Amino acid sequence: MSLTTVICVLWAVSVGQTAGSQHGTNIIIMLMDDMGWGDLGVFGEPSKETPNLDLMAAQGMLFPNFYTANPLCSPSRAALLTGRLPVRNGFYTTNAHARNAYTPQEIVGGISPDEILLPELLKKKDYVSKIIGKWHLGHRTQYLPLKHGFDEWFGSPNCHFGPYNNSVCPNIPVYNNSEMKGRYYEEFEINVKTGESNLTQIYLKEGLDFISQQAVAQRRFFLYWAPDATHAPVYASKHFLGKSQRGRYGDAMMELDDSIGQILAHLVSLGIHNKTLVFFTSDNGAAVMSGPLQSGSNGPFLCGKETTFEGGMREPAIAWWPGRIPAGTVSYQLGSVMDLFTTSLSVAGVLPPDDRVIDGLDLSPVLFNNSLLDRPIFYYRGNQLMAVRIGQYKAHYWTWSNSWEEFNKGINFCPGQEVPGVTTHTQEEHTMQPLIFHLGQDPGERYPISVESKEYRDVLRRVTAVVEQHQKDLIPGMPQLNMCDLAVMNWSPPGCEQLGKCLKAPESNPWKCDWPH
Amino acid sequence: MSLTTVICVLWAVSVGQTAGSQHGTNIIIMLMDDMGWGDLGVFGEPSKETPNLDLMAAQGMLFPNFYTANPLCSPSRAALLTGRLPVRNGFYTTNAHARNAYTPQEIVGGISPDEILLPELLKKKDYVSKIIGKWHLGHRTQYLPLKHGFDEWFGSPNCHFGPYNNSVCPNIPVYNNSEMKGRYYEEFEINVKTGESNLTQIYLKEGLDFISQQAVAQRRFFLYWAPDATHAPVYASKHFLGKSQRGRYGDAMMELDDSIGQILAHLVSLGIHNKTLVFFTSDNGAAVMSGPLQSGSNGPFLCGKETTFEGGMREPAIAWWPGRIPAGTVSYQLGSVMDLFTTSLSVAGVLPPDDRVIDGLDLSPVLFNNSLLDRPIFYYRGNQLMAVRIGQYKAHYWTWSNSWEEFNKGINFCPGQEVPGVTTHTQEEHTMQPLIFHLGQDPGERYPISVESKEYRDVLRRVTAVVEQHQKDLIPGMPQLNMCDLAVMNWSPPGCEQLGKCLKAPESNPWKCDWPH
Repeated sequence: MSLTTVICVLWAVSVGQTAGSQHGTNIIIMLMDDMGWGDLGVFGEPSKETPNLDLMAAQGMLFPNFYTANPLCSPSRAALLTGRLPVRNGFYTTNAHARNAYTPQEIVGGISPDEILLPELLKKKDYVSKIIGKWHLGHRTQYLPLKHGFDEWFGSPNCHFGPYNNSVCPNIPVYNNSEMKGRYYEEFEINVKTGESNLTQIYLKEGLDFISQQAVAQRRFFLYWAPDATHAPVYASKHFLGKSQRGRYGDAMMELDDSIGQILAHLVSLGIHNKTLVFFTSDNGAAVMSGPLQSGSNGPFLCGKETTFEGGMREPAIAWWPGRIPAGTVSYQLGSVMDLFTTSLSVAGVLPPDDRVIDGLDLSPVLFNNSLLDRPIFYYRGNQLMAVRIGQYKAHYWTWSNSWEEFNKGINFCPGQEVPGVTTHTQEEHTMQPLIFHLGQDPGERYPISVESKEYRDVLRRVTAVVEQHQKDLIPGMPQLNMCDLAVMNWSPPGCEQLGKCLKAPESNPWKCDWPH
Repeated sequence: MSLTTVICVLWAVSVGQTAGSQHGTNIIIMLMDDMGWGDLGVFGEPSKETPNLDLMAAQGMLFPNFYTANPLCSPSRAALLTGRLPVRNGFYTTNAHARNAYTPQEIVGGISPDEILLPELLKKKDYVSKIIGKWHLGHRTQYLPLKHGFDEWFGSPNCHFGPYNNSVCPNIPVYNNSEMKGRYYEEFEINVKTGESNLTQIYLKEGLDFISQQAVAQRRFFLYWAPDATHAPVYASKHFLGKSQRGRYGDAMMELDDSIGQILAHLVSLGIHNKTLVFFTSDNGAAVMSGPLQSGSNGPFLCGKETTFEGGMREPAIAWWPGRIPAGTVSYQLGSVMDLFTTSLSVAGVLPPDDRVIDGLDLSPVLFNNSLLDRPIFYYRGNQLMAVRIGQYKAHYWTWSNSWEEFNKGINFCPGQEVPGVTTHTQEEHTMQPLIFHLGQDPGERYPISVESKEYRDVLRRVTAVVEQHQKDLIPGMPQLNMCDLAVMNWSPPGCEQLGKCLKAPESNPWKCDWPH
């Protein structure tokens, strides 16, 4: 059966259905790791690694203007699950100005107990929630997923960096619910040399099984599917290795695409596709500093992960719900991962918390009526507002790629790209006269609009009002990512005793983490 | 009717048809001007300006690896119509090393009488041939289209630069067949300030009328449709101005896309779509040096027009022939505009000339059987071979963007992009140790493969053999683009007398043209 025929069949299915109330809808959020906007066939990647995602877009709604809340993994994921900017939910650092911080295994902090996560709220409507893959909201016991609303978990609290020697540094554990089942590079193999690992297949099977179980039991569910194969060290299973046209990263893309196709097909075969909202996106831009074998593409956008240029925060995004979301639609809505929090609550019939600021929008009018909601996008690094987008315009208040010191060591967040006065290697303040770009005309942020022009003055007036309002109301959360300590690393995670895999921690010796960029 | 439904209907049409012999097929080549690979929705441009081209791709065959024969207009167009590299057909200069040359109105030369053009050969099978739009193979009388096989012409011999004052420099004429009908900025208005011009509408009507006439008369035809709206100064008609999300260039894209949709729909309504091969492509990469309002996008590729980086020579390309070319196919064939010469002859049932080297391939096996033909792509600047692509690998023997002198004046062929040692501002020779890139893994030519690696040595051996063979057999044509003279400008084109638009030419004073880049 050809792709076209499949589209036709699903089209027929979708127009033949009457959409009922959305309350009680199952929710699947597929969050990729370091995948770039430009990695999808439907956004121009020419290697055709993503037939299933391209089909998902043809059957659903594609978002070319979708953003993460931070150009780095942990704050982005915390924002998705809380619906709040990292500067509010505490996933930032104040150790130095405008620095990206995350949760390596020496981090002391994690998600604050004061934050309310999406699965906690979904419990009000008896949803069963599972996270599969990377958590990244803190690896110490009190921060783990089952303490924050998830009923099930299969995956890991940190990045799959390694292999480590288990004396100076432990290998990262892989959990099943509240107990570790082994460690990366040990029970859960990743061959850094060949790039082979079976992890995506494991995460796929975990996902399919969870969906089947809930369908059989007729329980509402929330599945947060967060595989990490496209984060360095990039991996793929044997069947996919060497299959793509662009090396190991492309192989990982093909395997993730194949898995997503299998999950969607599984929903159809179980007959629950018309009561399940599936949203696909990524946690931050492609990590172009890692080179072509270990990173993806940010398409026409400037720089990548770690930066507040478009390449750091613009994400691929697709919403899919046959019979409810019109097939083959492109929405120009400015969207955010934080909207997944609010929109999920909306389709579940749960009110968001009213005791705090929620930054996410309910995208229901966009998904179901193709409306456009007016809203700004804020680009932060640490607690510093770096840039703002309103409509087609983006104003940079601060610019920085990374320091000369790092750059001279060969760490380049913008390889092959350099826009004088924009991709600066010193932190440059433009607060009095922001750099303004028209992203429709100039998606690559190469040609700042002349400060002499009427266009500039008009945009500046509009942006200033938005920023002043935002900053006036902003109460930063307590920063959670300031302290590090070797003693808190994954020496002896719960469950290590049964496996005989407990390791001896060093003495506690906390320090203020050094975040270089 | 939705896009999807249209695809389904055409799909049904195409599988229901039995393809007969291809001989005698009508041929339409749609050649855009300075349009970039990244300007199509189907290649990721997010402004959704090209629904008709995207549909054309869904109904036909899309080529992500298609190339022009030169990063500049005139040599590219001469190569298309002769099937031969500019270094063979004479469309180059030897005035300085590795310089791009074209046909401004002070050029003395043009297409050599020794070259055989596609429409001349198609006459053997009684094709009626028309060129609509830009010629650019020489504007002096002996070089014009009707002297080289075309039966009809509506358009202009040169770029629509201007307005000029008609004393130091004449405005460019617009011809109907062998006589001028007026001049740009006079009878054929282009408002440089607002960007308004009706020219694309005129070119569209000319195209539709020509097709209708041949269909009624049941004559085989070759239409070379070469509008220039996306070449600076970019223009669009009133209906399209301000309609796109990215300014004037996007408006021009929308109008061209709309026109292409109308031409395809016209073929369907006349019932000749199943005996017409339509090929869409562009003459060179987007002219990114012109800034965002006047230029398009080269997607993930490095630099643009004038350079032998991918942004200069990779082109959007679509083949369309319902019932004959399988719908919705992507071909990874390395293709070239020169293949349009050979492929057109093949579908017309005409043998190519056997007294000269033809660089174009017959793509019939690709179009009809989705085969892959092994072939190199050669990247020239003047008569200097700058780079070669075989398979996924590209080897640069010389690198140059433009001179420091030009660059320091603000002329930038790679705005926002700079790859140290690659986008050099001096002509750098790498003949002994070419820079080699894997374009599948690294489409942006950012990460040269290590010369220490086995991969490098293997590729170098393969590339060296191809280049040695190419250079051993190469007999450069007589260069046609060396001499300039103000006296040869468009002072008194044929037909000026009736219009009272003849201007006085200065004395002849030829000089060796200065080609700065």
